[in-house]
Amino acid sequence: MRDFSADHRWLSLNTATVRKQGNFVEIVDACARHGVRAVSPWRDQVADVGLDRAVKAVKGAGLDLSGYCRGGMFVADAGHRQESRDDNRRAVDEAKALGAPCLVLVVGGLPQFSRPGSAPSKNLADAHRMVEEEIAYLLDYARKAGMPLALEPLHPMYAADRACVNTMRQALDICDRLDPAKSGALGLAVDVYHVYWDFELKAQIARAGRERILAFHVCDWLVPTRDLLLDRGMMGDGVADIPAIRALVEAQGFNGYVEVELLSNDWWSRPMDDVITTCLARFRSAV
Amino acid sequence: MRDFSADHRWLSLNTATVRKQGNFVEIVDACARHGVRAVSPWRDQVADVGLDRAVKAVKGAGLDLSGYCRGGMFVADAGHRQESRDDNRRAVDEAKALGAPCLVLVVGGLPQFSRPGSAPSKNLADAHRMVEEEIAYLLDYARKAGMPLALEPLHPMYAADRACVNTMRQALDICDRLDPAKSGALGLAVDVYHVYWDFELKAQIARAGRERILAFHVCDWLVPTRDLLLDRGMMGDGVADIPAIRALVEAQGFNGYVEVELLSNDWWSRPMDDVITTCLARFRSAV
Repeated sequence: MRDFSADHRWLSLNTATVRKQGNFVEIVDACARHGVRAVSPWRDQVADVGLDRAVKAVKGAGLDLSGYCRGGMFVADAGHRQESRDDNRRAVDEAKALGAPCLVLVVGGLPQFSRPGSAPSKNLADAHRMVEEEIAYLLDYARKAGMPLALEPLHPMYAADRACVNTMRQALDICDRLDPAKSGALGLAVDVYHVYWDFELKAQIARAGRERILAFHVCDWLVPTRDLLLDRGMMGDGVADIPAIRALVEAQGFNGYVEVELLSNDWWSRPMDDVITTCLARFRSAV
Repeated sequence: MRDFSADHRWLSLNTATVRKQGNFVEIVDACARHGVRAVSPWRDQVADVGLDRAVKAVKGAGLDLSGYCRGGMFVADAGHRQESRDDNRRAVDEAKALGAPCLVLVVGGLPQFSRPGSAPSKNLADAHRMVEEEIAYLLDYARKAGMPLALEPLHPMYAADRACVNTMRQALDICDRLDPAKSGALGLAVDVYHVYWDFELKAQIARAGRERILAFHVCDWLVPTRDLLLDRGMMGDGVADIPAIRALVEAQGFNGYVEVELLSNDWWSRPMDDVITTCLARFRSAV
């Protein structure tokens, strides 16, 4: 396991962490200021400044990417399926333009939440089927573009409205069916926040192996958690055993950037430099 | 699958559903008034009026029980283990006195939350081990008392602070190790709220079979959910496909009471009779 106590060279900042404090270019500037070597941009933040300007900012600052957030929201009624397919191909193209190593997929929940305007449904089994069909469809395009897809199992509390793929087991079952050869074209984004609770975590990380772990995200689970979406904790403030989980992931050979991704009303209310400084300190002490 | 559209004869009211509106005896009186045939009492509500008075109220009203809530909170440091064991034996005795068909187990999360005062830990694997050891220990006592234990997998959002058994698979793995003969002494409480999201739900209900399904609880998952603990929805107000899940459970031969259990600030703020009337109506239309 890598020693992170002395520096933050393996930290990547997911740009949602400071999304309220500045635009994408300002976040890139702040990263350069703090010696952060990598970022993982969100699509809406890139769109806000324009893709060309985002690409120039990243390249100008000499930043690596650890991923691109996000494709997905595959679950739609028939009238919204083409919108989903077009949107996901654009996400692959943008990831390619930015030089991302993978496109993170948040697969969507029920159709009325995944693609608003879709006819409402309570059928999660249908959603599971559609997710798998649509990943298969996108995978063909992504392979040609040379862009790996990182399926992110989300915490089960998001099953209905954000992602109906909720465990490592479920995500790996999909990967094994769609990419049995472990070609590198399809794998997982493993986020401590979403998976720390799982009694099978150790076994499923071992099952994933190096070939399937395309990204590793950290933040912490707070007790109490006051908001289902926007109360993620700074590393060290919660109950997730982050170093133990990192050890499992690195035991499989993962040696890439560790991405800090907080969605938090608390941290969004603080100055950007303070948040980044805290991320760096906690990366050394609690990751 | 039983037809519930004409009456509520198979409804049991979990007394937490109206815990803020009256004491246990008042709730029993209300059930009698509304023709509710069964309840599932919580321990603190029973303790509040005294066990003897609670027993008399239940028997006087001719009510059945569908369970007793709850034993568990097994995870403790060494200094709190005896407290946990004594407490759980008392729960078995109370369940017996009340004539409950099973004692529901909420197993506890990390020790500092499960048994306050315990030394803090982030080690869920340790918690899993302790839960299994302590269920095994209690099972011996419960078998002698003739009181089945109904292990309840709780939604993963409660893994740290309430229950580190979070999926049907995990719970059934424990049952199969501790009671391989499917003797009836150990099984599950299946609660739609906790398990509706699980891609393995159908397969694990089939695996459970009639022998392992000791209780079946319903309420609904709201989108958005505004509070992790106290924002459960009335049946029909959310996104869980309750009839589809009931069909799976009944296909295994389950034919007992279906227990309505809402923990909800919204519903706690309404008059008891209104809440019960709504439960009965929704039981007929949305369960």
